[in-house]
Amino acid sequence: MSGDKLPRPLRGIIPPMVTPLLDRDTLDAAGLGRLIEHILAGGVHGLFILGTTGEAPSLSYRLRKELIGRACAQVAGRVPVLVGITDTSFVESVNIAREAAAAGAAGLVLATPYYFPAGQPELLEYLQHLTPELPLPVFLYNMPTHTKLFFEPDTVRQAAEIPTVAGLKDSSSNMIYFHRLQGLFKDRPDFSLLIGPEELLSETLLLGGHGGVSGGANLHPRLYVDLYNAAVAKDLDAVAELHRRVMQISMTIYSVGRYGSSVIKGIKCALSLLGICDDFMAEPFHRFRKPERELVQRHLIDLGLLPRQ
Amino acid sequence: MSGDKLPRPLRGIIPPMVTPLLDRDTLDAAGLGRLIEHILAGGVHGLFILGTTGEAPSLSYRLRKELIGRACAQVAGRVPVLVGITDTSFVESVNIAREAAAAGAAGLVLATPYYFPAGQPELLEYLQHLTPELPLPVFLYNMPTHTKLFFEPDTVRQAAEIPTVAGLKDSSSNMIYFHRLQGLFKDRPDFSLLIGPEELLSETLLLGGHGGVSGGANLHPRLYVDLYNAAVAKDLDAVAELHRRVMQISMTIYSVGRYGSSVIKGIKCALSLLGICDDFMAEPFHRFRKPERELVQRHLIDLGLLPRQ
Amino acid sequence: MSGDKLPRPLRGIIPPMVTPLLDRDTLDAAGLGRLIEHILAGGVHGLFILGTTGEAPSLSYRLRKELIGRACAQVAGRVPVLVGITDTSFVESVNIAREAAAAGAAGLVLATPYYFPAGQPELLEYLQHLTPELPLPVFLYNMPTHTKLFFEPDTVRQAAEIPTVAGLKDSSSNMIYFHRLQGLFKDRPDFSLLIGPEELLSETLLLGGHGGVSGGANLHPRLYVDLYNAAVAKDLDAVAELHRRVMQISMTIYSVGRYGSSVIKGIKCALSLLGICDDFMAEPFHRFRKPERELVQRHLIDLGLLPRQ
Amino acid sequence: MSGDKLPRPLRGIIPPMVTPLLDRDTLDAAGLGRLIEHILAGGVHGLFILGTTGEAPSLSYRLRKELIGRACAQVAGRVPVLVGITDTSFVESVNIAREAAAAGAAGLVLATPYYFPAGQPELLEYLQHLTPELPLPVFLYNMPTHTKLFFEPDTVRQAAEIPTVAGLKDSSSNMIYFHRLQGLFKDRPDFSLLIGPEELLSETLLLGGHGGVSGGANLHPRLYVDLYNAAVAKDLDAVAELHRRVMQISMTIYSVGRYGSSVIKGIKCALSLLGICDDFMAEPFHRFRKPERELVQRHLIDLGLLPRQ
Repeated sequence: MSGDKLPRPLRGIIPPMVTPLLDRDTLDAAGLGRLIEHILAGGVHGLFILGTTGEAPSLSYRLRKELIGRACAQVAGRVPVLVGITDTSFVESVNIAREAAAAGAAGLVLATPYYFPAGQPELLEYLQHLTPELPLPVFLYNMPTHTKLFFEPDTVRQAAEIPTVAGLKDSSSNMIYFHRLQGLFKDRPDFSLLIGPEELLSETLLLGGHGGVSGGANLHPRLYVDLYNAAVAKDLDAVAELHRRVMQISMTIYSVGRYGSSVIKGIKCALSLLGICDDFMAEPFHRFRKPERELVQRHLIDLGLLPRQ
Repeated sequence: MSGDKLPRPLRGIIPPMVTPLLDRDTLDAAGLGRLIEHILAGGVHGLFILGTTGEAPSLSYRLRKELIGRACAQVAGRVPVLVGITDTSFVESVNIAREAAAAGAAGLVLATPYYFPAGQPELLEYLQHLTPELPLPVFLYNMPTHTKLFFEPDTVRQAAEIPTVAGLKDSSSNMIYFHRLQGLFKDRPDFSLLIGPEELLSETLLLGGHGGVSGGANLHPRLYVDLYNAAVAKDLDAVAELHRRVMQISMTIYSVGRYGSSVIKGIKCALSLLGICDDFMAEPFHRFRKPERELVQRHLIDLGLLPRQ
Repeated sequence: MSGDKLPRPLRGIIPPMVTPLLDRDTLDAAGLGRLIEHILAGGVHGLFILGTTGEAPSLSYRLRKELIGRACAQVAGRVPVLVGITDTSFVESVNIAREAAAAGAAGLVLATPYYFPAGQPELLEYLQHLTPELPLPVFLYNMPTHTKLFFEPDTVRQAAEIPTVAGLKDSSSNMIYFHRLQGLFKDRPDFSLLIGPEELLSETLLLGGHGGVSGGANLHPRLYVDLYNAAVAKDLDAVAELHRRVMQISMTIYSVGRYGSSVIKGIKCALSLLGICDDFMAEPFHRFRKPERELVQRHLIDLGLLPRQ
Repeated sequence: MSGDKLPRPLRGIIPPMVTPLLDRDTLDAAGLGRLIEHILAGGVHGLFILGTTGEAPSLSYRLRKELIGRACAQVAGRVPVLVGITDTSFVESVNIAREAAAAGAAGLVLATPYYFPAGQPELLEYLQHLTPELPLPVFLYNMPTHTKLFFEPDTVRQAAEIPTVAGLKDSSSNMIYFHRLQGLFKDRPDFSLLIGPEELLSETLLLGGHGGVSGGANLHPRLYVDLYNAAVAKDLDAVAELHRRVMQISMTIYSVGRYGSSVIKGIKCALSLLGICDDFMAEPFHRFRKPERELVQRHLIDLGLLPRQ
């Protein structure tokens, strides 16, 4: 197993990369190259492709495979690449995992199957059957708003006995859950506990979490890396100031749209305005139209990410 | 378009076929043949493959394509075959739809994309983009417990203006919703309104619905066809008696297991006890173990579907 | 116990009366008298006060007691009066129950305590403690959208062993649940199973339910009584036609407002337009303003309940 | 208005006091006196009675009034007393508020009416109507798990323009919501933002929140006061260590029971074991039985709150 590319525990900022598209089934290959360089230039500690922010479930398998190959080649080992393999089909998860390993990825990320609501014993059994088929270490991904299902603490505890289960990324927005996991794993320093929503990154890092999978790091990677470093340095004032900036992005760029798609649309629109990549969205979503785009532009100017004209 | 195989409106009992499996990625081909003959022998009005009961989202695409080919060949035009194309990926939905058309299916069935929770305008636009790519007429499939999303009545009304949208199957268990749709479509006799849960089949048929996609018709197709015929004949006493039998199946076979998987596990276990096909379940589920199997056996005996030993 | 006023099982149409108000804490006493006469003139089989439609939880206890006294005096034994005693406080439920008995009510209606989400064993124990303190028979009231809690079938089954538990009114809109209860109580002809939402009244009556607690019977009691009689006579065509009229009210009068308050606002507004009682609503709601009122007026004309001007 | 007893903003630890009971409608008056002294001895900054932890909705109005009188008399101005007035009835909220003012309370706490799910505009209007009737400043209380309703950020922003609205206590467990409110109120230093769940107290205090309404402070008030002081002193290591102790209470005492009642039952049981007050619970709950009581005892010993025997 090529898991030796993966630090245990994985720490730091691991951006969940958006997937630059030209149309429904065409990668924006040039944009992808620019985006990866933009992100890595920010000093991030890893790259996570084919997650929720990457619109993975909306992409064809062909395109997912193309993306894995291109992204791993572009990163070229500078940071560990994690690949989302979440699927409703066990067999397709394994297929993607093999593509990821062949392309040189360092790890995998797996949410629960998201069509059928499984019971926790069924979920544990599923993990026990799936992990032996995976060629790389795997992070659990708790994402109940989209999967309808929590990885309950006791399930995580039992799953973590599988040696290749390397950590958990929590996007439930429920910090009580996260703190309970921290309590459960206080004697397992190798088990990464990562937070999804960047609005919760500061407290995660201040209270012993290992890092964040921060969508905003597509846009402004340095901000989140600075926050990580400030927290490691226990510089509470700096954390508080950077947290305010993170919240400003959340309350502006991410709040332009309605519906659950608002965050990804905001990030893609901003990246397009920054000239980094196309903002085409996979179905069932579509890019922001002109009024929302102008609002995002104004927010980018206020945030100092675009020059005042 | 080969939609001429599809009556408009489609009426009657269209069983959502379970998918007989030998293991995680192997069809039980012999069992599939027996199951189709068993169902058709009951006098059903169509066959729906790759729905929720068919565990479609849990199957590999390879296996789904194999199933489409074998099922259409076995049915050989005796009844219209509907194929589920629900997917989180637009492109994969189109791929499956083309396989279905090539194999001779009569129509398609489409629930909402089920990872990202789309807004209703996004959902309508998705339908407007997808339907022109589909080679066959399509039924909308309202399945909020699994997709997190309703096809709200106004969205259905607008979608129904697309000529290839042939009807809607409702599995929300909310008969107020269903009756509102009936009100909206009272001047559209060509638009099929079908009910998913068989516990609601009687009232659907008595109050003007077109038919049912009844899971129990895998097991006992004649019962549901009899109920349909009694309702058409306005024989209220017969409907009430058959409704009691339908409820008896629901309160016995479907209530053996826990969790959402209980219905499919119960049907597959019963089919295995009847010698029709294997009861292997795709991940994240597994077949009933011995105690539940014995309980299902006892229920089958009480229902008169297995001889008392 | 004065429960001898209550037929077992209770059958027919038992309207959940709105509470006519002049302001936040003043009963519209004249309107109340007119409303009761209007409803009784429709031939209903009972009257239910202080339910959800009656805005009970929004009223002061003083006003609730005044209403109980006035309503029972006005009805004067012509039909059984049921009084809602649902409360988060056990002691206050008992207090209201005693008022009801003293005023001559025939029965009580009790939903689950609706602040703390109790477990089912806690709920059963609560019923076992409360019922001995109640001076009248009691109907359980399943109202999960407002109480967050189902009376699960097994809890109902156990609660029904208490002799004073006379039936259940289901407002869950889940007919599978209702049919399962019917299955559980098929050998208990004294136990009333009543349906809340009038959109589900037809199927309830056609398939063996005892009656309905139909909000629209405030407005047009005869319609629901006719539907009941048609169902008892097994006149399926008449039921279907009356069901269409019931749905027309639901899709017009009840759909003018937004939010959960839409139904009660619609009924009160219509009653005000008919000159029966004031449409003041208890906080946190308020009566419809002019545009909605005009819409309700137009709907009443279309329904034939107001003369075309 | 006697609101001058209330610091603006209110800061620190304001325990939500449990209500000591001897039976369904009898206060444990002696226990109440001991409990208040126990809590105040811990150095807390206020006392909140008749909240969720105080089982307010389950108590009779008579008992609530008795509690207000006794608690205010016992506290005797040593710290501000806040009184919960949440009710489904506007009139009853005002009644309790008047009792609170007459008894010398400093402020009020108000969650949304919790039976009818109001729309946000309805909720704002309700606040605009209610606040002029209240004799004391009021804190909003966001408690969606029990009320089914959020105070959405824009509603809070508008409500905060009412001068007597003094702050908000958030028990949603959603720190993204809380951080958004902090962003909205960054220029309103007089507006208190308090956190309910003590598991989130550390991050609240580290990132600019004003304090916590920590249920565990019934049991161990000093721990939460120490945490508050450590956060004010920006002593991150001390905060982290105290946070671990807070989580240990959460993962032991609060996790003994099942259902939503588990936290209150755990606190009351522990207080009973410490000899402070009775652990009788209002319906629909009941005190822990022997096995759970022994478990709580063992946890108290492990936490150093009871001597090892």
